[in-house]
Amino acid sequence: MVESSIKEECGVFGIFNHEDAANFTYYGLYALQHRGQEASGICSSDGKLLKRYANSGLVKDVFNDTAIIDSLAGTAAIGHNRYSTTGGSGLENAQPMLIDFKAGQIACAHNGNLINAQELRTEMENAGSIFTSTNDTDVVMHLMANSRHKTLDSMILDSLSNALGAYSMLFLTKDALYAARDHYGIRPLSLGKIDGAYTVASETCAFDLLGAQEIREIQPGEMIKITRDGVRSFEIPKFKPVKTYAHCIFEHIYFSRPDSRIFGQSVDAVRREMGRQLATENPVADADFVMSVPDSATVATLGYAEEAQIPFQHGLIRNHYVGRTFIQPKQSGRNFGVRVKFNPVKSLIKGKKIIVVDDSIVRGTTMRKIVKLLRTAEPREVHLRIASPPVLHPCFYGIDMPRKDQFLANNKNVKEIESYFDVDSLAYLSIEGMLAALPEDQRCNYCKACFDGLYPVTKN
Amino acid sequence: MVESSIKEECGVFGIFNHEDAANFTYYGLYALQHRGQEASGICSSDGKLLKRYANSGLVKDVFNDTAIIDSLAGTAAIGHNRYSTTGGSGLENAQPMLIDFKAGQIACAHNGNLINAQELRTEMENAGSIFTSTNDTDVVMHLMANSRHKTLDSMILDSLSNALGAYSMLFLTKDALYAARDHYGIRPLSLGKIDGAYTVASETCAFDLLGAQEIREIQPGEMIKITRDGVRSFEIPKFKPVKTYAHCIFEHIYFSRPDSRIFGQSVDAVRREMGRQLATENPVADADFVMSVPDSATVATLGYAEEAQIPFQHGLIRNHYVGRTFIQPKQSGRNFGVRVKFNPVKSLIKGKKIIVVDDSIVRGTTMRKIVKLLRTAEPREVHLRIASPPVLHPCFYGIDMPRKDQFLANNKNVKEIESYFDVDSLAYLSIEGMLAALPEDQRCNYCKACFDGLYPVTKN
Amino acid sequence: MVESSIKEECGVFGIFNHEDAANFTYYGLYALQHRGQEASGICSSDGKLLKRYANSGLVKDVFNDTAIIDSLAGTAAIGHNRYSTTGGSGLENAQPMLIDFKAGQIACAHNGNLINAQELRTEMENAGSIFTSTNDTDVVMHLMANSRHKTLDSMILDSLSNALGAYSMLFLTKDALYAARDHYGIRPLSLGKIDGAYTVASETCAFDLLGAQEIREIQPGEMIKITRDGVRSFEIPKFKPVKTYAHCIFEHIYFSRPDSRIFGQSVDAVRREMGRQLATENPVADADFVMSVPDSATVATLGYAEEAQIPFQHGLIRNHYVGRTFIQPKQSGRNFGVRVKFNPVKSLIKGKKIIVVDDSIVRGTTMRKIVKLLRTAEPREVHLRIASPPVLHPCFYGIDMPRKDQFLANNKNVKEIESYFDVDSLAYLSIEGMLAALPEDQRCNYCKACFDGLYPVTKN
Amino acid sequence: MVESSIKEECGVFGIFNHEDAANFTYYGLYALQHRGQEASGICSSDGKLLKRYANSGLVKDVFNDTAIIDSLAGTAAIGHNRYSTTGGSGLENAQPMLIDFKAGQIACAHNGNLINAQELRTEMENAGSIFTSTNDTDVVMHLMANSRHKTLDSMILDSLSNALGAYSMLFLTKDALYAARDHYGIRPLSLGKIDGAYTVASETCAFDLLGAQEIREIQPGEMIKITRDGVRSFEIPKFKPVKTYAHCIFEHIYFSRPDSRIFGQSVDAVRREMGRQLATENPVADADFVMSVPDSATVATLGYAEEAQIPFQHGLIRNHYVGRTFIQPKQSGRNFGVRVKFNPVKSLIKGKKIIVVDDSIVRGTTMRKIVKLLRTAEPREVHLRIASPPVLHPCFYGIDMPRKDQFLANNKNVKEIESYFDVDSLAYLSIEGMLAALPEDQRCNYCKACFDGLYPVTKN
Repeated sequence: MVESSIKEECGVFGIFNHEDAANFTYYGLYALQHRGQEASGICSSDGKLLKRYANSGLVKDVFNDTAIIDSLAGTAAIGHNRYSTTGGSGLENAQPMLIDFKAGQIACAHNGNLINAQELRTEMENAGSIFTSTNDTDVVMHLMANSRHKTLDSMILDSLSNALGAYSMLFLTKDALYAARDHYGIRPLSLGKIDGAYTVASETCAFDLLGAQEIREIQPGEMIKITRDGVRSFEIPKFKPVKTYAHCIFEHIYFSRPDSRIFGQSVDAVRREMGRQLATENPVADADFVMSVPDSATVATLGYAEEAQIPFQHGLIRNHYVGRTFIQPKQSGRNFGVRVKFNPVKSLIKGKKIIVVDDSIVRGTTMRKIVKLLRTAEPREVHLRIASPPVLHPCFYGIDMPRKDQFLANNKNVKEIESYFDVDSLAYLSIEGMLAALPEDQRCNYCKACFDGLYPVTKN
Repeated sequence: MVESSIKEECGVFGIFNHEDAANFTYYGLYALQHRGQEASGICSSDGKLLKRYANSGLVKDVFNDTAIIDSLAGTAAIGHNRYSTTGGSGLENAQPMLIDFKAGQIACAHNGNLINAQELRTEMENAGSIFTSTNDTDVVMHLMANSRHKTLDSMILDSLSNALGAYSMLFLTKDALYAARDHYGIRPLSLGKIDGAYTVASETCAFDLLGAQEIREIQPGEMIKITRDGVRSFEIPKFKPVKTYAHCIFEHIYFSRPDSRIFGQSVDAVRREMGRQLATENPVADADFVMSVPDSATVATLGYAEEAQIPFQHGLIRNHYVGRTFIQPKQSGRNFGVRVKFNPVKSLIKGKKIIVVDDSIVRGTTMRKIVKLLRTAEPREVHLRIASPPVLHPCFYGIDMPRKDQFLANNKNVKEIESYFDVDSLAYLSIEGMLAALPEDQRCNYCKACFDGLYPVTKN
Repeated sequence: MVESSIKEECGVFGIFNHEDAANFTYYGLYALQHRGQEASGICSSDGKLLKRYANSGLVKDVFNDTAIIDSLAGTAAIGHNRYSTTGGSGLENAQPMLIDFKAGQIACAHNGNLINAQELRTEMENAGSIFTSTNDTDVVMHLMANSRHKTLDSMILDSLSNALGAYSMLFLTKDALYAARDHYGIRPLSLGKIDGAYTVASETCAFDLLGAQEIREIQPGEMIKITRDGVRSFEIPKFKPVKTYAHCIFEHIYFSRPDSRIFGQSVDAVRREMGRQLATENPVADADFVMSVPDSATVATLGYAEEAQIPFQHGLIRNHYVGRTFIQPKQSGRNFGVRVKFNPVKSLIKGKKIIVVDDSIVRGTTMRKIVKLLRTAEPREVHLRIASPPVLHPCFYGIDMPRKDQFLANNKNVKEIESYFDVDSLAYLSIEGMLAALPEDQRCNYCKACFDGLYPVTKN
Repeated sequence: MVESSIKEECGVFGIFNHEDAANFTYYGLYALQHRGQEASGICSSDGKLLKRYANSGLVKDVFNDTAIIDSLAGTAAIGHNRYSTTGGSGLENAQPMLIDFKAGQIACAHNGNLINAQELRTEMENAGSIFTSTNDTDVVMHLMANSRHKTLDSMILDSLSNALGAYSMLFLTKDALYAARDHYGIRPLSLGKIDGAYTVASETCAFDLLGAQEIREIQPGEMIKITRDGVRSFEIPKFKPVKTYAHCIFEHIYFSRPDSRIFGQSVDAVRREMGRQLATENPVADADFVMSVPDSATVATLGYAEEAQIPFQHGLIRNHYVGRTFIQPKQSGRNFGVRVKFNPVKSLIKGKKIIVVDDSIVRGTTMRKIVKLLRTAEPREVHLRIASPPVLHPCFYGIDMPRKDQFLANNKNVKEIESYFDVDSLAYLSIEGMLAALPEDQRCNYCKACFDGLYPVTKN
């Protein structure tokens, strides 16, 4: 997906009992930058006090001064990357959130989305609570503060037992780090170890950067508590009966980095197999080569090339110097659009019959511009292949999508999209083909509601 | 006072029903910059939604982009300048604070200090509340959210009826601006009018900048509510019986700008009269001239000069180019200290018998350096006169002082201080002399606890 | 002068054989900030190589990182503050200028203005020279490079012998610091000593900050060369016969800091005497008090008060928080103008007959706004007194003035100006009165061409 | 080459007679960012005056404000990207250089390196010239200013006739844009057209971004002059007889973007063919797949994969969020080195026999770290293939290399390098194989001195 028409909230990282806690959290967040690029924050504990620093921007821009890292003293820390919220400086919603309550200081960082957050919030507001952000984190914190339980462990478990939806969540107190994951296992969350210290991260690529060893995933419905005495596991009381897991299939399709392992699988391997399935289901005869829309679709494209026995080529050069601060002055109203990011390799494309693979299509507005750009290189034919099914339904578990009526596949059939994109043919991977990329016994453990509308977690 | 060894929290400004609300609040805060230089924030309402922007730094540095002001849409706004808090980025404590609660969005900006804040906080934490800052504002917000009253007016009044201490406080909702002042009238707060819109400010100098007319002070114990229908006045229920007002005398001595009117008096007139009283009580025979430690002591010094019939001179040139960002590299460990700020005019001072007036002394560390610097210009004699009594007791009503054992007058008698400062004589204004600068009927309405230890507001 | 309608180029500082050379130059430039606020630069020598750093902004903003000072290694340095030039980033004109030429590296910093620069420039361009700036420095450098002399000392002297006009100029090579001053002594330049090292500065206030001792002025027509062997003095060959010195009287009136000594006099003493003369020449009967337009006119005002035996008051409070970065958003087209800088003290002014003293008037546009502002405080009468004669003629020796036809006194007579300013009376100091503030034997040594049009240095 | 152990100076862009001249130059420089990332500058002409803005940083950081672009008024502009120089702020060397000389204002931007610059410089210094930078540009400007010719066209031609070495150079005057290229055609330079305006650029990828049409290359030894009357071509007088062209082969190997056309060839096609030749010369039996060191080696790797009929894989994930401002705090002295940029895909690599292709090796220090990183993913065998011959000799024509004794291939033979890198085998492309990637009739037109020491341009 060349344009972030869908966005996930967020990436989390934590480490306990390591002298470089804040520093490692900084690197961990950097490795998880792809999961949230609008704001970043770290909260650390020195055993007595928690300190917090958060701001809007990329990890490297928020933590652009060694003094900031140094100010986050202590041997435990949690961190968070997020997408921006509407309105104001957005700093109200920057995480981790740090509060004082009856049991002392606690910080929280959250990835996911609770589907009953608004009800809980209204209920607690009516009972006298005030909210300083629109985060789900704020809701979970209030649930915990309102709990009648006596120990912090029980307060957190009590809080989570009222939360319905997707959460991979870290809590930091002065002397413990908690990591919790919803019963459906919707978002990934893994446990690792380095230098004798435990670490948790949304994706294992954060462990790789640090040189940490992956131990296991936090289990769906599990909360672990890491202290100086080691790791202790708790079962989170269920809100309602849970039949199967509901891992987000879009993590494999687009969100996670290919070098991560999530839900027990290599993202690279699953994504590549989706490309192979795509080639099997939707071949193109006599194509000269297959190319991807860089960079997210490259792994699936390599799978397609392998299966189809067609050369893979870099037909679009991506300019990585563009950044959030790149200005586009428009003295004469001209906008260079996608050409600022991509340039087709004319010598490669001219006169050729090419296959272009993208990982997914939501609104399709940028894909249309890309095909138009490719056409300037005068290919003979352009065949577009999408390594996932048509997106038809919104996500309620942490993916921020445009309105459903903006989904291309809800407004146009394949023929119409071919015409809209100006491609010679278009084909999507089928739901069955997508599932075939997963181990057979795992297929029932995935949420694919954005494709089939079958929502695994509902209020009723 | 040349060094901010005491600090006040804070300055507030608000305006309602003016199309330039955020812009005027920006200028208002700029005029009140002397009341808080570490962080600044504005919250505006467009009738439906409240927006907030706050950051650390001077007003001109926080609001350094027209786009920020423009983003604070609407016709009502409140703003706040504050001193920094310890730890972290301090942004948690930046005001105005903006929350969601059962009655919708509300923002609050506060100047003062509640003496029962910690008790209220503990009580509410035990009842399930969470706190995201260490502000008194946070406590007042929770009191309001926990109120069982039904209307917002009543909720705020109920909240304030539980608050004991100093507050000059503004609240903004989508369609109203509230201004409240404690029953003791400890901190100033005035009401003004411009272009048909009402405005409130800690000091009237903010009105002058905007061209607004001063109407009156918010009365001690009064809350006003400004809506499109005009101004309505409420009486805040008393926490305990109140005998007299307790206006902070230090506002006249040091904090407020001389061009402001507070507590019904011109600061310039009162401060000048203190200088005259000082001259009457503590003359110096045959002095060549009197000079001030610029800039805060200048008005009192002019009073001294007038009364003593001695020329006033600018004996210290102050360099205003120094700022918060001025670095002092110390390649060889040398520190230029007060010389970076001040330079004595040698031609004026050499061989002369001079009187130096300062407004007040708390720790005295900088004064000592200044006298040392003046001595390099070789005056014949240096006589130091302080336009207020010795500071002996801490303030609990919003002035952030060093620990009591750091007060110079608690550790040394006048002879010892003369020796410590290396001055030929030292004399303070008496408490009686200080009060004599005020109208006779007003003298009982002032708090002078930092001088005499008689605290007008206590928990018991 | 409240608005910089006239500007001087620039302030210079140098030090040789001191381990803190760059650091001390930074402080020296900071003390000379009032002589140029648009750009600042330092060039240092470590005995082998010269390094340079310059940028636009105040000294504290240009050198806002210890690493920058540290990068300017070595035991000798020169520095420069300047006003901006029109067009571009202006960095082309930032000084010191550093070049390579046949004798190696040399840097130059210049205060003043050559009246034959354009002729020299054209001549050298015709002979094949290229210019990268519009600085006079560039011209002097080219003269030096084109010199047929063999030693550097002679090359510089040869260069200066061709330069006609005002210059107080520093040169730095890898092992020597040169300081030169034109034969007329138009701009100040002094020699000092600290820790055994020699230092040079535009004004002695820079010595005071560092704790350096003033030794003497560089004599008009003198070039000194400071090396490890000490100071050696050279006579600069005269361009044409020189009758008297031509010290800039405006240095005493406005430019120099009152705590400096220049041209053998205390600026404070001369400026104060001008105020006294003004009072003698232009008294106001029964005035309640005299006040200044802060801060530049304060010393003259004190002289006026002394002579007239009228109280001096601070009638205008100046807000020092305004800075170069202060934005003035104009949502509704309102501009608060001078009120952003000044606020009259109403309680002091209301109903009074006041005298307002300013040091000089060039265009008068800001003075008009200030009187308008003062009128809002409802004084009974406003009498304006100017502590210098009317400015009628442009300066060609380093003061950047507006076009002559913009000088107020060229367009209106006194009556008309009184009406334009809305003052009850206006009076200027006479040329004789101004000169009377100087020692009798020194009066012929001053340039007062901006008042009388008698230019002491001309091409013919 | 994963680490920039070799650097080129620089990229140039120009446009004439276009209302968006500065804006288009900004985009053109952005497209040429890969040719120089340390400083960027633009000079524009409005027909009367030239304006210039340059600073250190990426194009997007230097021109981060629309106001900067807007200040570069006019319909003609030239721009330049460069690598940093040692010492100081480096701004002295930022280009374009803008001067005044006898024929008026002229700006110059240069890509290449003159081998006789030092001689010319010394000669002109001895004749009285001064130099403000260490640029070759400065030398060419002085040559031009010293020319005895009468027209500007002749002055520039005269200047260039004295320059020996590599130059692709742009000049801008108030009413003309000149583009000149040395007789050897060492660096690329192309002419394009858009909206009726002419444009010149180091590489055609800049034309693609703007939507400009490539017309032709500036010929070796040609200077064109673009005015409102169109394009006129001049022949630059030869410094010495020229036998063949000497296009830099490293432009095809590494510097230029694959989507550019240079020296009459598609970079993608030549680079891919080098990969094919590498596979032919240095096959690896039974390899599981071939992968590149991203991003520069990818095209050659695709060629290798095609020829060897082995799958291409993305075995290293590159993190593009790292940037110039990324800090690496080292609380415990740990350095994550290349892991900050790259992460191996373990699931892909584990147990496999892999071929890794890089485009070139100079020092080899980073390659060693990358193999070490790859080894953590536990491949069975690692075979390294380099798509160019061993670098043995320094470049004197504009590539900034480390000292010759730091070249890996000068210190170790292949066996030793295999051991140093910890690879199972290492092989380079031969010189013949490299040339075979070029059209047969073009092979003699290339400089390959860094490989064979046969320098095509020498002083003798």
